[in-house]
Amino acid sequence: MKKKYLLTPGPVEAPRRVLEAASRPLISHRCGEFSELFKGISRKLGRLFESGQPVVILPSSGTGALECAAVNFLRPGDVFISLSCGVFGDRFREIAARTGARGIYVDAEPGSAPTPEAAAAALRENPGARALLVTHNETSTGVTVPVREIIAALPAEGRPLVLADGVSSVGAIECLPESWGVDVLCTASQKGLITPPGLGLVWLSKRALDELKGRECPSYYFDLKLHLKNMKPDSYANPYTPPVSLYYALDAALDIILAEGAPAWFAKRRRYAEAFAAALEELGYELLVRDRRLRSAGVTAFSAPGDASEVVRKRLSAAGYETAGGQGTLKGKLIRAAHYSDWEMPDMEDILRAFAEAIDNNSDDGYLKTARNIFENR
Amino acid sequence: MKKKYLLTPGPVEAPRRVLEAASRPLISHRCGEFSELFKGISRKLGRLFESGQPVVILPSSGTGALECAAVNFLRPGDVFISLSCGVFGDRFREIAARTGARGIYVDAEPGSAPTPEAAAAALRENPGARALLVTHNETSTGVTVPVREIIAALPAEGRPLVLADGVSSVGAIECLPESWGVDVLCTASQKGLITPPGLGLVWLSKRALDELKGRECPSYYFDLKLHLKNMKPDSYANPYTPPVSLYYALDAALDIILAEGAPAWFAKRRRYAEAFAAALEELGYELLVRDRRLRSAGVTAFSAPGDASEVVRKRLSAAGYETAGGQGTLKGKLIRAAHYSDWEMPDMEDILRAFAEAIDNNSDDGYLKTARNIFENR
Repeated sequence: MKKKYLLTPGPVEAPRRVLEAASRPLISHRCGEFSELFKGISRKLGRLFESGQPVVILPSSGTGALECAAVNFLRPGDVFISLSCGVFGDRFREIAARTGARGIYVDAEPGSAPTPEAAAAALRENPGARALLVTHNETSTGVTVPVREIIAALPAEGRPLVLADGVSSVGAIECLPESWGVDVLCTASQKGLITPPGLGLVWLSKRALDELKGRECPSYYFDLKLHLKNMKPDSYANPYTPPVSLYYALDAALDIILAEGAPAWFAKRRRYAEAFAAALEELGYELLVRDRRLRSAGVTAFSAPGDASEVVRKRLSAAGYETAGGQGTLKGKLIRAAHYSDWEMPDMEDILRAFAEAIDNNSDDGYLKTARNIFENR
Repeated sequence: MKKKYLLTPGPVEAPRRVLEAASRPLISHRCGEFSELFKGISRKLGRLFESGQPVVILPSSGTGALECAAVNFLRPGDVFISLSCGVFGDRFREIAARTGARGIYVDAEPGSAPTPEAAAAALRENPGARALLVTHNETSTGVTVPVREIIAALPAEGRPLVLADGVSSVGAIECLPESWGVDVLCTASQKGLITPPGLGLVWLSKRALDELKGRECPSYYFDLKLHLKNMKPDSYANPYTPPVSLYYALDAALDIILAEGAPAWFAKRRRYAEAFAAALEELGYELLVRDRRLRSAGVTAFSAPGDASEVVRKRLSAAGYETAGGQGTLKGKLIRAAHYSDWEMPDMEDILRAFAEAIDNNSDDGYLKTARNIFENR
């Protein structure tokens, strides 16, 4: 049978070894073996983030991790600045607004990103803002927001807590919360971490840990202090039952990423994205993100010639290549293809050939040579 | 290698077929195949509950399902009556109290259960109570609370919403929310549903659906209306990424339960529990729950002769039989052994022999005959 490709930007195709890990016999989440598994994952996440700060693991989707950040750090009456350039930035602010905090909204057009200048200006106008919400990778448009530069543009004094959505960046795109100055970084298992969905992850800075002291959390489920209390140096546990099989899977996935070395892994995803985009353009597809520096290494958004994106998506799906469409105002207008998985050049060639066939492009295979050249030599 | 037994009351040992289902290649949660999988699970849950009412599936633990019930149906200033006879009843009320609602606490001793009379009396004294919280199976003591009888004892007029915790009952113990008059039934994947942990389930009565209308939910993640809006008759979807692999696993587990027929499956768990308890008593263990009618079909709590429960648990663990201990005030004083899994008589014999060895009981195998007689003939 012909291989099928899951090109949706989450869940992404998980490596076979990761899926097999998810079928190991279950163990008690109160035994030493589980504690060691959890500690091992923490150490590996520490290597990914280049940080020894704790990462809480929730039985949740990425949306749950974002809600966890919001309910632990925002209260009714607080002001937060929310930077958004798409559906997921909008979702983060909606989650935050339900805490009763008031949002100052800074928007960028789909396909572009909020700028450091816009963030700094919003903060000057709202000097008492408690938090700044930013989405590192906007999955709906394939834009990677320059979080590092945005944080660098903020004044050091009276700086709001930076709550970052790394759901579709972590694991695939360099994201160093400690050195960049992020306070709370949320992510999930099913994208850059090439694991099945079901785990939400929340990394916390020293300042974030300090802020938690003396605060009551209105949610029991997302109470970070309850989670941290269970993560003692000698034994790592959870306040309630964790998805044991997905811990096994995440552990196996982190081994795959770290065996290559995180920077090398990120660089490969970047080369893949650039090679893929160049070949798509050569085929006649139009990329949504014009500024190359903003193009995501995890997901690429583009449209088919002649406004035929939805027709092309159906043809791709019938051929075994499952993509995602546009969301929100871009519904029906986009094709989104992810490249978080551990694909190599033969996979990209298969995929690109399918994209050529789907628009009846019978040109020679120059587009494949372009892709190979970038992926292998850049 | 000798077989190991996971006797903890969650996660429980999942059948091989269920674990294998969890390792299937991932699919997009926005494709038709996933919608069919979700719909199939819904139909199967409908057979288990003997109800056509919707069941929302959350990426969460059972605690998350309980929080979902609380945040959708309780508001600051509401009064709720909470019946508790152990750690999990106490947890449910703590979750509910964080909404700002005020709890009226009705307690029963560990090993006993709240009575219908006590519930009715509390309601007479608090006629405006918005909700009654009840735990169907108290995992910390192995007590099954007579939820059906408790609801029957409530006046029909001005009845509070009944929010039931079925986390450790559903799948193993008959639980018919619609015919019993439950309004919101919460459960999770990893106990009676013999699936790995990671899914929280929330069944909703007609009245509960009505109550949701016009209400704003303070939580985005647990917003039931958002979930229900995505469950259209022709396509079942989720508002955010569901744990796809665990849906596969739950589907396989429901097939195993329903192939036997839910009532037959429940009866077998009941016979297993009775046989197991009788053999344990014959060996010299002391059962916590004196009233046989309250003994859980899912989990049995007991102590080893001579206050040696913790020593015995360690010996069992070293031999490959992982049990749970007591919780809260019963810490160190109990052994808890679950029997949610699809174990047959040979498994029970293995397990009982280990329990005999762990207390150096070298008597003849009369206790095994007792067990066999009850399991096979009752």
